[in-house]
Amino acid sequence: MGKIKIGILGYGNLGKGVEEGLRRNPDMELVGVFTRRNPEDLNTSSPAYSLNNLKDFKDKIDVLIMCGGSKSDIPEQGPKMAQIFNTVDSFDNHGKIPEYYEIMDNIAKANNKVAVISTGWDPGLFSLNRLFGEAVLPQGNTYTFWGKGVSQGHSDAVRRIKGVKKAVQYTLPKVEMVEDIRNGQEVAYTNRTAHDREVFVVLAEGFKRDEIREEIVNMPDYFSGYNTRVHFIDDEEFERNHKKISHGGKVIRQGTTSDGNISIYQFELALASNPEFTASVNIAYARACYRIAQNKDYGAKTVLDIAPGLLSMYSMEELRNRIV
Amino acid sequence: MGKIKIGILGYGNLGKGVEEGLRRNPDMELVGVFTRRNPEDLNTSSPAYSLNNLKDFKDKIDVLIMCGGSKSDIPEQGPKMAQIFNTVDSFDNHGKIPEYYEIMDNIAKANNKVAVISTGWDPGLFSLNRLFGEAVLPQGNTYTFWGKGVSQGHSDAVRRIKGVKKAVQYTLPKVEMVEDIRNGQEVAYTNRTAHDREVFVVLAEGFKRDEIREEIVNMPDYFSGYNTRVHFIDDEEFERNHKKISHGGKVIRQGTTSDGNISIYQFELALASNPEFTASVNIAYARACYRIAQNKDYGAKTVLDIAPGLLSMYSMEELRNRIV
Repeated sequence: MGKIKIGILGYGNLGKGVEEGLRRNPDMELVGVFTRRNPEDLNTSSPAYSLNNLKDFKDKIDVLIMCGGSKSDIPEQGPKMAQIFNTVDSFDNHGKIPEYYEIMDNIAKANNKVAVISTGWDPGLFSLNRLFGEAVLPQGNTYTFWGKGVSQGHSDAVRRIKGVKKAVQYTLPKVEMVEDIRNGQEVAYTNRTAHDREVFVVLAEGFKRDEIREEIVNMPDYFSGYNTRVHFIDDEEFERNHKKISHGGKVIRQGTTSDGNISIYQFELALASNPEFTASVNIAYARACYRIAQNKDYGAKTVLDIAPGLLSMYSMEELRNRIV
Repeated sequence: MGKIKIGILGYGNLGKGVEEGLRRNPDMELVGVFTRRNPEDLNTSSPAYSLNNLKDFKDKIDVLIMCGGSKSDIPEQGPKMAQIFNTVDSFDNHGKIPEYYEIMDNIAKANNKVAVISTGWDPGLFSLNRLFGEAVLPQGNTYTFWGKGVSQGHSDAVRRIKGVKKAVQYTLPKVEMVEDIRNGQEVAYTNRTAHDREVFVVLAEGFKRDEIREEIVNMPDYFSGYNTRVHFIDDEEFERNHKKISHGGKVIRQGTTSDGNISIYQFELALASNPEFTASVNIAYARACYRIAQNKDYGAKTVLDIAPGLLSMYSMEELRNRIV
């Protein structure tokens, strides 16, 4: 049987993660990386092409993994690409997923394609666990915690402050609240009460720690109302300890199966590399995408629509034997 | 839209759990409990019938949840019931699942029925997590831990010892090994090295603690080779603290997304009532079973074959909006 032929659109951290991850999936092969940049400028040993040539690969790519950003890349590229390719993306603008689904569903159906949208870990594996938790414990509450991990948005916000040379922001779940939930207690969960923020800053010459700290902890939307700790470190420590794009989080369902009998359902990820793991999930869903297309079940799909066994490189027979 | 009509076959702890759980699922209704015993002897307010009358309910039950044991009840009842009903079971004899699947698949297909087999938490939710973990982290290792929880088989084995009045056995995962895995270290995992056993015994009059302890910790297959702690307690403490059929466990996948970048994927359950939670999972899969049958996709299914969204009482549209 031939390998599943994959194309990568966009060569940022996520695209690089897909390239790396495909080496761990022997039933797949990378046809090429497609970029808006000059393909010769990409630092890769994979075949690299200009985005302008992508349409020539219509019959050479089974699934195109779209690795651009959710803010502008995916909403623009998705509807175009789903006319030509089976696609996988990790569109993560939660509020706009229903709208994006409708658009992609119509286009994919009209073109006999499959578009797997919003994979990754949140949305993605976390969505699955919110679903499973609620379905098996219909009376209860679901809590999502993010971190410990790097928030790109918050790190960017700190870096925009005058006097900040380098900065990284970690989101941390409140350990005590997690423990209370796991112990079956009621908690007052909001995103703000459930998370702390920790910032590591390298100061530029001639700026004062206290002023910068004040500016950070009072920044509206990003930090105001949160418990924020700011640490000032030197350049060397920053480079040594704060370059990894680590992340993770938890989905916890606390529910009762009868009066007084509490069940705790918990899913947790701790990831050394957020983009590499997201890429790895995308790859598993690319395999499912290919199989669903083979089965002519065209249209847009979320992780909730896809039978778990389709993600595996092994046969259902082997999985029944070894995994069930 | 009418409610999904459920029948319960067998009224032990699991059957009672399904009866209780159905009260938490407003889109379903209980048609009746079916028993080999005299139905008048069941302590229930639900309609109760003799197993002999079950075939009269052929057109009155959408899904029959089989709540007997995996040792003899399910292997005998499954093939008969799948001729007449869509079925859900929690057949948990892992080694025999492939064989049982084949039998149920043939019968269900021949009779235009759907047979969802081996649901619950292990097999069931744990199977799903072994699958997801391996699919998204193809280079890595998967570890399953059970406990802290009551093992019925081990409790029974201790109770058969002369001089033991009451006994309960808890299986405990080795906390240090779990921590090592979560820290990305390699471990020498076997079922035996990964679990401890803890036994609480109420002695009968005239028997000696040390002799009973020796007999327990050296019992072949059950305790020999395990780290086993035996506690002797009085009747009152036993009744107060050791009557709940609690259980739980963890599935952990430790894998790399690139050299040196480790991801930890962890799923965990802590259940006040093992049979009630198993029942609750069965109910969610009964909903999926009904929908798959409506869709005429007949045959046997494991949790790996079933799209997660089918488990929910909510529409896919609402789920995309609220959960993805």
